[in-house]
Amino acid sequence: MTVPIVRVGVLGAGFVGAELIRLLGDPSRHVALVDAATADVQVVGVAVRDRDKARAGVAPSLITDDASALLASDLDIVVEVMGGLDPTRGYIEAALSRGVSVVTANKALIAECGTELARLAHENRADLFYEAAVGGAIPILRALRTSLAGERIERVMGIVNGTTNFILSEMTSAGSDYADALAQAQALGYAESDPRADVEGFDAAAKVQILSSLAYGTELTGEPILREGITGVRAVDVEFAHRSGYVIKLLGVAERVDGGISRRVHPAMVPVDHPLAAVHGAMNAVFVEGAASGPLMWLGQGAGGRPTATAVLGDVMHAARNRVSGRHDVPFSVDGTLTTVEPGDLSSVYYLSLDVLDEPGVLASVAGVFGRHHVSIQSMEQSGFGDEARLSFVTHVALTRDVWATLDELAQLTSVDSIGACVRVIEGGRA
Amino acid sequence: MTVPIVRVGVLGAGFVGAELIRLLGDPSRHVALVDAATADVQVVGVAVRDRDKARAGVAPSLITDDASALLASDLDIVVEVMGGLDPTRGYIEAALSRGVSVVTANKALIAECGTELARLAHENRADLFYEAAVGGAIPILRALRTSLAGERIERVMGIVNGTTNFILSEMTSAGSDYADALAQAQALGYAESDPRADVEGFDAAAKVQILSSLAYGTELTGEPILREGITGVRAVDVEFAHRSGYVIKLLGVAERVDGGISRRVHPAMVPVDHPLAAVHGAMNAVFVEGAASGPLMWLGQGAGGRPTATAVLGDVMHAARNRVSGRHDVPFSVDGTLTTVEPGDLSSVYYLSLDVLDEPGVLASVAGVFGRHHVSIQSMEQSGFGDEARLSFVTHVALTRDVWATLDELAQLTSVDSIGACVRVIEGGRA
Repeated sequence: MTVPIVRVGVLGAGFVGAELIRLLGDPSRHVALVDAATADVQVVGVAVRDRDKARAGVAPSLITDDASALLASDLDIVVEVMGGLDPTRGYIEAALSRGVSVVTANKALIAECGTELARLAHENRADLFYEAAVGGAIPILRALRTSLAGERIERVMGIVNGTTNFILSEMTSAGSDYADALAQAQALGYAESDPRADVEGFDAAAKVQILSSLAYGTELTGEPILREGITGVRAVDVEFAHRSGYVIKLLGVAERVDGGISRRVHPAMVPVDHPLAAVHGAMNAVFVEGAASGPLMWLGQGAGGRPTATAVLGDVMHAARNRVSGRHDVPFSVDGTLTTVEPGDLSSVYYLSLDVLDEPGVLASVAGVFGRHHVSIQSMEQSGFGDEARLSFVTHVALTRDVWATLDELAQLTSVDSIGACVRVIEGGRA
Repeated sequence: MTVPIVRVGVLGAGFVGAELIRLLGDPSRHVALVDAATADVQVVGVAVRDRDKARAGVAPSLITDDASALLASDLDIVVEVMGGLDPTRGYIEAALSRGVSVVTANKALIAECGTELARLAHENRADLFYEAAVGGAIPILRALRTSLAGERIERVMGIVNGTTNFILSEMTSAGSDYADALAQAQALGYAESDPRADVEGFDAAAKVQILSSLAYGTELTGEPILREGITGVRAVDVEFAHRSGYVIKLLGVAERVDGGISRRVHPAMVPVDHPLAAVHGAMNAVFVEGAASGPLMWLGQGAGGRPTATAVLGDVMHAARNRVSGRHDVPFSVDGTLTTVEPGDLSSVYYLSLDVLDEPGVLASVAGVFGRHHVSIQSMEQSGFGDEARLSFVTHVALTRDVWATLDELAQLTSVDSIGACVRVIEGGRA
């Protein structure tokens, strides 16, 4: 059988790029790949910054440091795995403008300008796929685009950052402090030396934006969303959660609330019998609640060269099949009727912990602040002595704005040393 | 925007059919559905056996008892949710022969003659989709067809029968006997009054066949596979598993073994920290190990009218989109080089329990049988007295053929009352 050749240019030859090239070039996979793509997918060029760096498994003859020349050559698909916003965005726009399909793993770029790029792709009858941008190997984005395209999705909750899930899992299983768990994650290569993108939730926020756009039709324009990281979570909070039947996870959430969409990243107490509670270490998972489907969950490796490369490979196969049949996928649609729900307008049960001075009257003044802001207390625990004195509260369902006002005022009390964790508690339909 | 109309005929208006018709007719979903399908998907006729039965949500004018006349009318897609092999198969063949795409939830039919039907669909440039046949709402089949099309899959393990998972979950959480848990499943509507299709693994076996065909390219010709049900699993076995750090699950397995494929259904002890161990009650899950992707898991509701209807709906949307763009999906390919691995040739750690006579010398004679068949014992437990005396063994990795021969000979010993459970223990790469 003769099949058409689909020509692929790759931008970047890091872990993911090199692995993709190896997978596409693996002779033992060749027949299956041709079969799956109904095309012979061939890498015809690889653009890198440093041409002289050795790259195992990548034929030196394919390598160039002239990305623009590669993009100007005869290509069907461009795979972008170089990362960053600039000059990457320009490269992708150049490819799409010429009607070349683009497969990218670049979550930051897609969150920043995905709507515009998708429009450009559609106008030029090209595909723009980015399965690897969320959840590594987990094929959640294509499921939202295809299998769930007819479903009304009510809520998406994801553990979409492996670094923070590893840290929280270590704190849970070994009782480690945050700092020790972070150091261990860094030693094992799960966390960067500058961990802020992960622990402060930037990475998860970009993924939430992307999930939301496919689940609901929100736009990808780089608009910031509520983002609370895990740096305030302490061993005592994890331990309190455990005693109460919960596990603390950093969740990315996108849900329908009163006709609008709420998108946010924050730590949450997840009940131990919830499927997300069993997602350990650096694994990722996305939990989706559909109106008719009920709960669905996807689980898999959220990072790593090989797992991520399989997501890129799936996109390349799909783009190649489309190429051969002369069509492209319709990009996600934008629902202009959706409003963004203000984070302060959401209600939740909250767990809060405070370091306080161990002196008479503290509890009364703290409780007074809660009362003034209409935040009703469900349970309270006092622990430690002297410098270690601490108050932990679980509230009834409260308006987030009121909880924030409570924390602001508490921070000003001389009897409050510092505000510790502020963690939403997932109960029934709320987070 | 004017969009083409896609005409759908539905065969059967039971739970799934009626729910699908409601979803397609829901005005609040209409815009989203048109958008997702790039077509206006309209149900133009519903064939039922009994025309006079009231069917909530289905317009009486759509209903006919003449399936053949509906099939002969102008249709783009036929949805088959009537079940059974005959006359269903004939209806589906009639539709495909005319180039009408078919969406079915009929696992038994697809397992029986899926290869032939797929060929017929392809020859007539029609689609044949059956997402709802495995795992209810879980979109695993499309993921295998698309996102994982380029991946080399090593193993698929599924909890694909909600009835047996409910029964085993009850036995685990409440310590119930098998008979009590079955009765409860029947009372709650999770099990049929004749439960054999579920508890003896027939239902799971059909699903394993379907998963295997998409994961590896094995044929769907109704060839029987190894099938061991859960009727031999007792409360003591579940309790033994719990003490040893395992949960007993009925697994459907399809895996590569030495260049061939092993397909089978049997109870297995799953380590408590394995993602499948956390799949409770009537939920379904499919765990996939890819060579590059690593472990992946899908979880969701495996049964019920609404969840199953969402899987059918996803297929209808996809078929409608293809219809509008004048194309069809290439069906799964058959890999003619694959052989079927004999179940007796597989190796596994086994848990075995025997009811024995409480008298001197029993253990020696039982142990002698294991030894003669080269089945090496890892641990042994003796429990109960008198009529309740029981021996439980965990073997080292043993050839299944040898374990079977051991059991055959043990059954003939006068000191062995009966053979209880024979459960494979999942350890590392083996099941």
